[in-house]
Amino acid sequence: MYDGIVQDLIDEFGRLPGIGPKSAQRITFHILQTPGFDVSRLSQLLGDIRDKVRFCEVCGNVSEQERCAICRDPRRNQTLICVVEDAKDVAAIERTREFRGLYHVLGGAISPIAGIGPDDLRIAQLMQRLADGTVQEVILATNPNLEGEATATYLSRLLHTIEIHVTRLASGLPVGGDLEYADEVTLGRAFEGRRSI
Amino acid sequence: MYDGIVQDLIDEFGRLPGIGPKSAQRITFHILQTPGFDVSRLSQLLGDIRDKVRFCEVCGNVSEQERCAICRDPRRNQTLICVVEDAKDVAAIERTREFRGLYHVLGGAISPIAGIGPDDLRIAQLMQRLADGTVQEVILATNPNLEGEATATYLSRLLHTIEIHVTRLASGLPVGGDLEYADEVTLGRAFEGRRSI
Repeated sequence: MYDGIVQDLIDEFGRLPGIGPKSAQRITFHILQTPGFDVSRLSQLLGDIRDKVRFCEVCGNVSEQERCAICRDPRRNQTLICVVEDAKDVAAIERTREFRGLYHVLGGAISPIAGIGPDDLRIAQLMQRLADGTVQEVILATNPNLEGEATATYLSRLLHTIEIHVTRLASGLPVGGDLEYADEVTLGRAFEGRRSI
Repeated sequence: MYDGIVQDLIDEFGRLPGIGPKSAQRITFHILQTPGFDVSRLSQLLGDIRDKVRFCEVCGNVSEQERCAICRDPRRNQTLICVVEDAKDVAAIERTREFRGLYHVLGGAISPIAGIGPDDLRIAQLMQRLADGTVQEVILATNPNLEGEATATYLSRLLHTIEIHVTRLASGLPVGGDLEYADEVTLGRAFEGRRSI
């Protein structure tokens, strides 16, 4: 619809997740028409991200160095590993400020439909990290959905063969939520996991 | 929350219209983790857009040349000018394939609240284009909202001083819409503008 670069940029933005053609057009015109928007900085960062950002060789989190800031931090509890599907989950857990141990990013979850099996995940690397006996507890923090549960079940069986304490994040009612609107499975889990007070 | 470039890129995407922190994170990780995504192309286009894209010196539409493709096209009806607020409106009208005349982009609408008066719009340039008597009709296609209507009223008064045929896009029920859900003003306009069939 537009000439050359404008349409090309709209098309490129439209390839990003969650951006439809209308949003892509709005973003492109914002960049074109807003003098205060630093387009060269965005361009530079996009040029750098694939070159400079890698994945931590220990835990698989995003990092600009061989080992990520969390793995390098000696104040983190070295006896505790929290296993997550994705680097985005690390950021979500860090925001809670509840967890001071280390992480292990699997890079996905077991999904027969998507053709992802245990060998496609960073499970061998996890077993290697547990070999020296420093780690005492592995917290399984995969998503509470079909794939995440399957992955947690698989890992739990595997980890019990090497005698390590394995835990799973609690399922239950979300804080601030309304009991009336909770789905049956979640409400069932909340009953199952009820605690004395 | 993340180290260096990853967080910087999330922040930059978050500055774009309609992209919140969650979407910005999702987009950044998509760029980082999708091998098929051509990040260098996006980076290059962003580097080019401000340098290579300008505004047509005749109509104010976006263009990579001094005059845009529409103004350069001799097959367009040179006696008809459609006045719009923004270059995005040109693209919207072109998609209808109903209009074969020329455009004039005002660069906004009169808005006392936003401090935009007639002198901030490309009105002098419009009057100049009308001076040689080629143009016989000016279609006012500013938005059917407060600012757009005020702009259309202002222009209509101004254009009547030079004896030119001035029209305004029809207001009425949107096609495919439901009468029951139309607002009073739109429904009122639909009555006002009713036609014999």
